[in-house]
Amino acid sequence: MNTNPLSATFRLGFLGAGQLARMSGLQAFRYGIQIGVFSDRDENEPVQFMTPHSQTGSFDSVDDLTAFAESCDVLTLENEFINSEILKQAQEDSGTPIFPAPDSFALIENKLIEKQTFEDAGIPVTPYALIKDEDHLKKFGDEHGWPYLLKSSKGGYDGYGNETVRDINEAIVAFENLGGNSDRDIVAEAFVDFTHELAVQVARNETGHVVYPCCETVQEDHICVAVKSPAPVDKTVQEKAQELALQATEAIDGKGIFAYEFFLTPDGELLLNESAPRPHNSGHYTIEGCVTSQFENHVRAVMGLPLGSTKLRKPAVAMINLLGTDRRDAQVDHALEALAASDGHLHVYGKLDSKVGRKMSHYTLLGDDMEQIYAKAQKVTKGIRI
Amino acid sequence: MNTNPLSATFRLGFLGAGQLARMSGLQAFRYGIQIGVFSDRDENEPVQFMTPHSQTGSFDSVDDLTAFAESCDVLTLENEFINSEILKQAQEDSGTPIFPAPDSFALIENKLIEKQTFEDAGIPVTPYALIKDEDHLKKFGDEHGWPYLLKSSKGGYDGYGNETVRDINEAIVAFENLGGNSDRDIVAEAFVDFTHELAVQVARNETGHVVYPCCETVQEDHICVAVKSPAPVDKTVQEKAQELALQATEAIDGKGIFAYEFFLTPDGELLLNESAPRPHNSGHYTIEGCVTSQFENHVRAVMGLPLGSTKLRKPAVAMINLLGTDRRDAQVDHALEALAASDGHLHVYGKLDSKVGRKMSHYTLLGDDMEQIYAKAQKVTKGIRI
Repeated sequence: MNTNPLSATFRLGFLGAGQLARMSGLQAFRYGIQIGVFSDRDENEPVQFMTPHSQTGSFDSVDDLTAFAESCDVLTLENEFINSEILKQAQEDSGTPIFPAPDSFALIENKLIEKQTFEDAGIPVTPYALIKDEDHLKKFGDEHGWPYLLKSSKGGYDGYGNETVRDINEAIVAFENLGGNSDRDIVAEAFVDFTHELAVQVARNETGHVVYPCCETVQEDHICVAVKSPAPVDKTVQEKAQELALQATEAIDGKGIFAYEFFLTPDGELLLNESAPRPHNSGHYTIEGCVTSQFENHVRAVMGLPLGSTKLRKPAVAMINLLGTDRRDAQVDHALEALAASDGHLHVYGKLDSKVGRKMSHYTLLGDDMEQIYAKAQKVTKGIRI
Repeated sequence: MNTNPLSATFRLGFLGAGQLARMSGLQAFRYGIQIGVFSDRDENEPVQFMTPHSQTGSFDSVDDLTAFAESCDVLTLENEFINSEILKQAQEDSGTPIFPAPDSFALIENKLIEKQTFEDAGIPVTPYALIKDEDHLKKFGDEHGWPYLLKSSKGGYDGYGNETVRDINEAIVAFENLGGNSDRDIVAEAFVDFTHELAVQVARNETGHVVYPCCETVQEDHICVAVKSPAPVDKTVQEKAQELALQATEAIDGKGIFAYEFFLTPDGELLLNESAPRPHNSGHYTIEGCVTSQFENHVRAVMGLPLGSTKLRKPAVAMINLLGTDRRDAQVDHALEALAASDGHLHVYGKLDSKVGRKMSHYTLLGDDMEQIYAKAQKVTKGIRI
């Protein structure tokens, strides 16, 4: 076991092998350390091309996770498809610390507990209720109006595990589809009228904390298609979102990097919508857009190092998600205009297979004027096929 | 063989496995491609922790190099310890392109030919002569004064393969030590009186070229200890150095990234001192200091992609080389102040063993005033032990 994380034999282990682990791993390498990766898939995943230390196993197996943890000096998560109890046991059995800590993760892994945790900390959240049966479904619609959202309390992301229900009949079907009749907790969430969807990342460890600028996430069908930083909203709103994000991180004693998504209502209220105990798509722009990226502060946070400045490098930063356009072997076509644009930065995740809508790549453009660079970023990426 | 380099199965192969390949590899990963590494050492080297595709063999063996080349889509160099003829044969046998091209490399691999190539292109070089015997040694001293430098025509770097000779007796010993009495060409170089040592990087491929700012390299005992960009010299001198660097790259039809080191004489003349057909220590500051780093443009150049902007991100960028301070297992101690400095960036190369003077790490600090940030960069790195 290494006591100084800045050692050439120090190994940071990632639970999950996707683009978030990949981009974090690139920062880990910058510090001269090694990375390990644990995946539950046999196929070659983005991070497996980046290290000789790759293990496969089940996220449900304490033994598998413990064996992996024993080969690393510290572990971190890149997704939430894991149970905090299993994580805790693997931490105890291996003696390898895990950040965010299983106890922190336990407070947000379940959507119901997450809402209660943040509500208890005085953070406004979207109206919600635990749904157990048809009566609950009906009552929530009567109180908060139709349509509303039904969410599985665990495992949802990017619209998966969520269903919009317009009436009681749709609600009954969705409840069944989401597993409400088996052991799964289903949470109803009111649709909130909003002018903007905002996001803030926070890095925190025992040395202190840093808060990223408040950015806007532009969504289509519950998928983030673009990010603008800073968000085109009042400075006071930006600061309030940053304050709430820090408060939320403190409420779970979070150590690592965290992302928070907010709705900004027409009357200027901020409601916390989602949290993520890991690097987040809304923070990809920070790689070039901020002095220290979310990935670098993620690595610093879990290594116990001092955190770096989150200042924007330019007045306006736009990020465009480049989703799969075709089902084929992954390759990026027609990206030359995007590559040639001054201060335009292309990131490709190294996934072998492209599928329509799959997160394959992103593009960041820095400039002085948001309207201008957002329009330009859209223009130069429009023809890209992946 | 991949025709589109932005494919998830495209593999960029590095001949050499040190920090230059490591930092280039980090950029290759950003484009979603894979990397392979060829090393002539059995020990674990920096890049070998970054890929499952690692081969060992001899740089003198066409077969070894061809086998490696066949596992990659394009090859590039990270050092000059290879023969252009062998490289050319491996390129022909494998069908895998190599950048810089063996024909370009042939024009600079030998110090004598390098000088002649650049002189023929109208680029002023430091006074030199091919030395075959004691008469030559004496004649050079008589013409250009003592002391002067004797250099082995191949394989020298960072002062190795170079000897300073103060009189004919020292010259005779050095000539013998450098292999002058066997088959090796020895070149004498006059000591040039200079006010600054400057460097410029150039990236070039079939899509065009980009030239980096002219920086100053601060040297102690022929080792670069720090870099300041832009160099604290007249704008006209900076531009002249950039012009000469581009001219030199065109003279060898260079495709890839190249670095050129110049002496600036007291009367304002620029003399080309050294060239390198690869990323160079003088350009490490570009990782955060420029919109597109030398490593990213290296990867772009060899992949045939359009080259990115070389603009400085801030008015002043300082880079400090962190050389090994102790002989021990590599770890970085007392780096917290450096990490905590705003816009300070630590890079560690992942070498397992530290040795006194070995290049282990570097630190870059960005700011508005060169004097201020250079002093600060020195202050926060002074206590670091590696």
